[in-house]
Amino acid sequence: MLSFECDYSEGAHEKILKRLLETNMEHLPGYGSDNYCESAKEKIRSACNCPDAEIFFLTGGTQTNQVVIDSMLRPYEGVVAARTGHVSVHEAGAIEACGHKVLTLPQHQGKIDSLELLALLESFWDDENYEHMVFPGMVYISHPTEYGTLYTEEELKSISGICRKYQIPLYMDGARLGYGLMSRHTDVTLPKVAEYCDVFYIGGTKVGALCGEAVVFTKKNMPAHFLTIVKQHGALMAKGRVLGVQFDTLFTDDLYFEISKHATTMAEYMKEGFRKKGQKFFIDSPTNQQFLILENNQMKELQKKVSFSFWEKLDDSHTVVRFAASWATQKEDIDRLMELF
Amino acid sequence: MLSFECDYSEGAHEKILKRLLETNMEHLPGYGSDNYCESAKEKIRSACNCPDAEIFFLTGGTQTNQVVIDSMLRPYEGVVAARTGHVSVHEAGAIEACGHKVLTLPQHQGKIDSLELLALLESFWDDENYEHMVFPGMVYISHPTEYGTLYTEEELKSISGICRKYQIPLYMDGARLGYGLMSRHTDVTLPKVAEYCDVFYIGGTKVGALCGEAVVFTKKNMPAHFLTIVKQHGALMAKGRVLGVQFDTLFTDDLYFEISKHATTMAEYMKEGFRKKGQKFFIDSPTNQQFLILENNQMKELQKKVSFSFWEKLDDSHTVVRFAASWATQKEDIDRLMELF
Amino acid sequence: MLSFECDYSEGAHEKILKRLLETNMEHLPGYGSDNYCESAKEKIRSACNCPDAEIFFLTGGTQTNQVVIDSMLRPYEGVVAARTGHVSVHEAGAIEACGHKVLTLPQHQGKIDSLELLALLESFWDDENYEHMVFPGMVYISHPTEYGTLYTEEELKSISGICRKYQIPLYMDGARLGYGLMSRHTDVTLPKVAEYCDVFYIGGTKVGALCGEAVVFTKKNMPAHFLTIVKQHGALMAKGRVLGVQFDTLFTDDLYFEISKHATTMAEYMKEGFRKKGQKFFIDSPTNQQFLILENNQMKELQKKVSFSFWEKLDDSHTVVRFAASWATQKEDIDRLMELF
Amino acid sequence: MLSFECDYSEGAHEKILKRLLETNMEHLPGYGSDNYCESAKEKIRSACNCPDAEIFFLTGGTQTNQVVIDSMLRPYEGVVAARTGHVSVHEAGAIEACGHKVLTLPQHQGKIDSLELLALLESFWDDENYEHMVFPGMVYISHPTEYGTLYTEEELKSISGICRKYQIPLYMDGARLGYGLMSRHTDVTLPKVAEYCDVFYIGGTKVGALCGEAVVFTKKNMPAHFLTIVKQHGALMAKGRVLGVQFDTLFTDDLYFEISKHATTMAEYMKEGFRKKGQKFFIDSPTNQQFLILENNQMKELQKKVSFSFWEKLDDSHTVVRFAASWATQKEDIDRLMELF
Repeated sequence: MLSFECDYSEGAHEKILKRLLETNMEHLPGYGSDNYCESAKEKIRSACNCPDAEIFFLTGGTQTNQVVIDSMLRPYEGVVAARTGHVSVHEAGAIEACGHKVLTLPQHQGKIDSLELLALLESFWDDENYEHMVFPGMVYISHPTEYGTLYTEEELKSISGICRKYQIPLYMDGARLGYGLMSRHTDVTLPKVAEYCDVFYIGGTKVGALCGEAVVFTKKNMPAHFLTIVKQHGALMAKGRVLGVQFDTLFTDDLYFEISKHATTMAEYMKEGFRKKGQKFFIDSPTNQQFLILENNQMKELQKKVSFSFWEKLDDSHTVVRFAASWATQKEDIDRLMELF
Repeated sequence: MLSFECDYSEGAHEKILKRLLETNMEHLPGYGSDNYCESAKEKIRSACNCPDAEIFFLTGGTQTNQVVIDSMLRPYEGVVAARTGHVSVHEAGAIEACGHKVLTLPQHQGKIDSLELLALLESFWDDENYEHMVFPGMVYISHPTEYGTLYTEEELKSISGICRKYQIPLYMDGARLGYGLMSRHTDVTLPKVAEYCDVFYIGGTKVGALCGEAVVFTKKNMPAHFLTIVKQHGALMAKGRVLGVQFDTLFTDDLYFEISKHATTMAEYMKEGFRKKGQKFFIDSPTNQQFLILENNQMKELQKKVSFSFWEKLDDSHTVVRFAASWATQKEDIDRLMELF
Repeated sequence: MLSFECDYSEGAHEKILKRLLETNMEHLPGYGSDNYCESAKEKIRSACNCPDAEIFFLTGGTQTNQVVIDSMLRPYEGVVAARTGHVSVHEAGAIEACGHKVLTLPQHQGKIDSLELLALLESFWDDENYEHMVFPGMVYISHPTEYGTLYTEEELKSISGICRKYQIPLYMDGARLGYGLMSRHTDVTLPKVAEYCDVFYIGGTKVGALCGEAVVFTKKNMPAHFLTIVKQHGALMAKGRVLGVQFDTLFTDDLYFEISKHATTMAEYMKEGFRKKGQKFFIDSPTNQQFLILENNQMKELQKKVSFSFWEKLDDSHTVVRFAASWATQKEDIDRLMELF
Repeated sequence: MLSFECDYSEGAHEKILKRLLETNMEHLPGYGSDNYCESAKEKIRSACNCPDAEIFFLTGGTQTNQVVIDSMLRPYEGVVAARTGHVSVHEAGAIEACGHKVLTLPQHQGKIDSLELLALLESFWDDENYEHMVFPGMVYISHPTEYGTLYTEEELKSISGICRKYQIPLYMDGARLGYGLMSRHTDVTLPKVAEYCDVFYIGGTKVGALCGEAVVFTKKNMPAHFLTIVKQHGALMAKGRVLGVQFDTLFTDDLYFEISKHATTMAEYMKEGFRKKGQKFFIDSPTNQQFLILENNQMKELQKKVSFSFWEKLDDSHTVVRFAASWATQKEDIDRLMELF
């Protein structure tokens, strides 16, 4: 059975497992204070061209969003996000569970619009009753978005400028950041991300790691006693080495970028294949996730031979589905996939 | 200066103050266990034609929404409300502060639509990823709504039926319930409210009390240890008599209905006045709040002579404003108001 | 039936009700922005000899503790309190419900000891694992304590000095503050309280008001957007006038101090009576609450003729009970009480 | 440099890494729905002799305590634990962060006493003011405790009986469960744990896994929608296989018990060595953690050559320290350690 269900169907890149094995019996201090974590941080700072970056490794995406957002908001503040943002819809209320509202903006192919953001902020501060409302205290964007789309540098700059004007941090959810940076259709680089965002995370779970996300605070703005906050959220890993070794490996010899590039190349190949087969795209995604509109019977037939993800119901006879490429995708599998269309 | 700013500009109905004075030096037990609370509850049960109703008195509207919703939801559940619902917008995130998401539906003159509610519930349970999403665990409606509008009995029945099908409680925010029940344009009575809703509150603060809201659980469904939950929210009044005496007075000789009727009659008189003056209504409200569209300069002129509420910006030169009648409104003041148009 | 159960058995002092009546039909803005609130604040500032004090009126004691503590702590911080402190035991977990641990110290007749406080703080910061523990972020004391006892100025000064050394605020729960200040056995004045504490509240509910507590931030340290935080906790009263008028009356012509003095004089009279009758005191209380040790059969006999409070079981045959005097206590009732012994 | 600092200084047992490698490229569904998770659950059920057990894999100990306790308590309930329990002291307030108080009992070598537990429960329900207090809703014990000590079967049975009488669940924190079960000085087996506890977890992080704890609900009492609750806490691992493969390996051919046995044997060997060297024990621990009292200068000298853990200050010249054996401890390292004494 072919599998294009998601980008976390396999374990980890072999180099990561190899390093975990090699370092396995070293005695290392816990909670992220080992030298692999240090080395990984240094390499990430360098890749971000951000020597002052403060970095913390967490285990998963929802956890990271929860800890970062909760630690940076004051109790009376909420986070602004696209209606389709992961924090808005698919985290089981993890943000609200910490007491914060997700203030939603319309989505445009998964992205927020800077003018609509500006209007939301202006209208909040112009409202005579703003003291009875949740303060917009942070902006959340995902890049790539939940629909695989990307912000342009110009868009990022614009959103970042608005955030600075209103003195609220811009946070980027980079669960699939590598796949965004290595798209052929982007002008956004990792140093640009570090420049425009106040905090972001470099996703590992979906880009070749067993688990792990690297949170990067770019403006010497890591909240005081962040380790304690992480611990309080149940998110502090005893064997921090597990995350340190993985990110150290990913950021050695550009492995993170290389495997991300592989995924986007595979996605383009798959996209081209779908195009040739006359398939209908739900959205024009430049990254590793491709969204097709399938007729329901066709979908059911396909499901017998290949796994892919249900995305949303389009109408009574059509469904939006997702085919994901990843660091682990094999070209031959795509060829076999195309034979099914 | 004339005042039509809101329905809580004055203190309490004189009969309430009189009773507070008369009973003032009686030694009474605390926390709502006094006999005035008991008597008030009995009268409310009777007015609701709901002999089994369990009743609890709280101090204010946001507090009531927070305590009721938090106590009736499981941690993984959120409350469904209109995008313009008080809990969605004007409670400073009080629901989220307790860990629960407000799941929004479109608003239609402040109301939710039963078909859209049904679609939300169906689509949640049909979603393959529903376990990663906030469960719709309760439905919140306000009656009258934030725009002064009212549900018909048919609409209530339909929403209630959907809630029962999905086994989630229907909660009515009755901050201005009296003004809704005493509208000339409603077929909804208090017993009907008790029949269709699983829990609702009868607002006192905006209907003649110094403070106080009576929460009514209609189906023997008051959460276990509700008093402790109230205490934990900081919402348990030591001198519960203050609420008991007020509600006992309001539900003696139909005072609550009488003063509500006065308010809606005054509102109709005001509405008729505006109509004659050719003013433009933002919405056709059958209750005590009237919403006008004012040209901005006209608005500024008026503000010098009468207080009213900013509601929302309509366009660059027009603003929606609210004129509220209440139990305390004087006919002569409306006559004087009309002279300003 | 005689009543010495508590200090909130009656309504409000008659002057308060009179003022509520006199001002009842004035149109006033909501949420504490009326001029009675302003006037009350000014009088309190003056009584505290603290011209810069920032003041906010809330409804009840647990609510006040919850809002103040939650608004002044960072998420990783807890509040230090005596094991018998109200926040530790009798608020149904209201502090924990907001996410904060109550870190307990031993109690000495209801008070914390400054050396034990110092030891707790030193030991926290000396602990190699302090990052895995809840930070002591505030000190809570009640004055009078839950046992009616009082801190001396020297003790307050010492505790305050330790708090300042560790840069954490000192918060005094003054639910019965008047009864403490007007004890014959105290050298603590209201200006001293304002000097040593960073924040405290002047209790109204138990000292002659229907409800209401005045929170005083003494060092220009009211948390930003405090009104929104209050609203989010469901603690913002729509008719703020109810609190404003009450505190304005209490702080006009020293009414608050006068009625507090009456209560402590009555308590001394009662204490003297108990002494003459050979009753055994559980604690030597200098304020309005008196604690006796009663043999259980004697207690049951008494309960038929007078109401008082169960405090705690002492041993199998004895119980600690409380007799409370208040602003409303009549000398003749004490005389009648003594006839029962 | 020798290392006896803790039982999580190394990576994972080699068999675990081997299995992770072997299964690495298999396409598996996410979030714990893969067949390795299923297989691991089945093996654990069998080892527990509890065919109905419901099992969920989480990542770390504090996370597990937080999710389990929060999911099983009602909002007005707290968890009873020893004053020295991990949840009481060393989880940065993770339980309170979810709104629940930790109600403490005295500790006796790290353990709670069943009679003191009974007294706490009786006294709560006998208290006339219990409605104003946090309800004891669950009992937390750690086994081994934070001091390495163990409950006897008799003690477990007694605590369990009390919990059942009061209808509250008994929860065992088994972060080091293997080391407890494989002690030479215990009559508690895994099936006994499953019999007496309502829920417990089998610790992996400290017993040979990279990370991972297996929560076992023994009475068909896993809270409804537990996966969503886990997700909401940011604790749901995308690649659940990482936990599944590890626990499947640990429970294949008794690996978990074998490596635990190794650790306790090493600890006994170390203990015997210390005894021969005339070292003073702080506590008589029958498991993998050994606590010594060191004179401060001796401690400083030792720290140059071996890493161990600061535990607590005993007096001005002595400190309690911990030496931990683990699945990875080498006999030769203990021999070298002894040469330092």
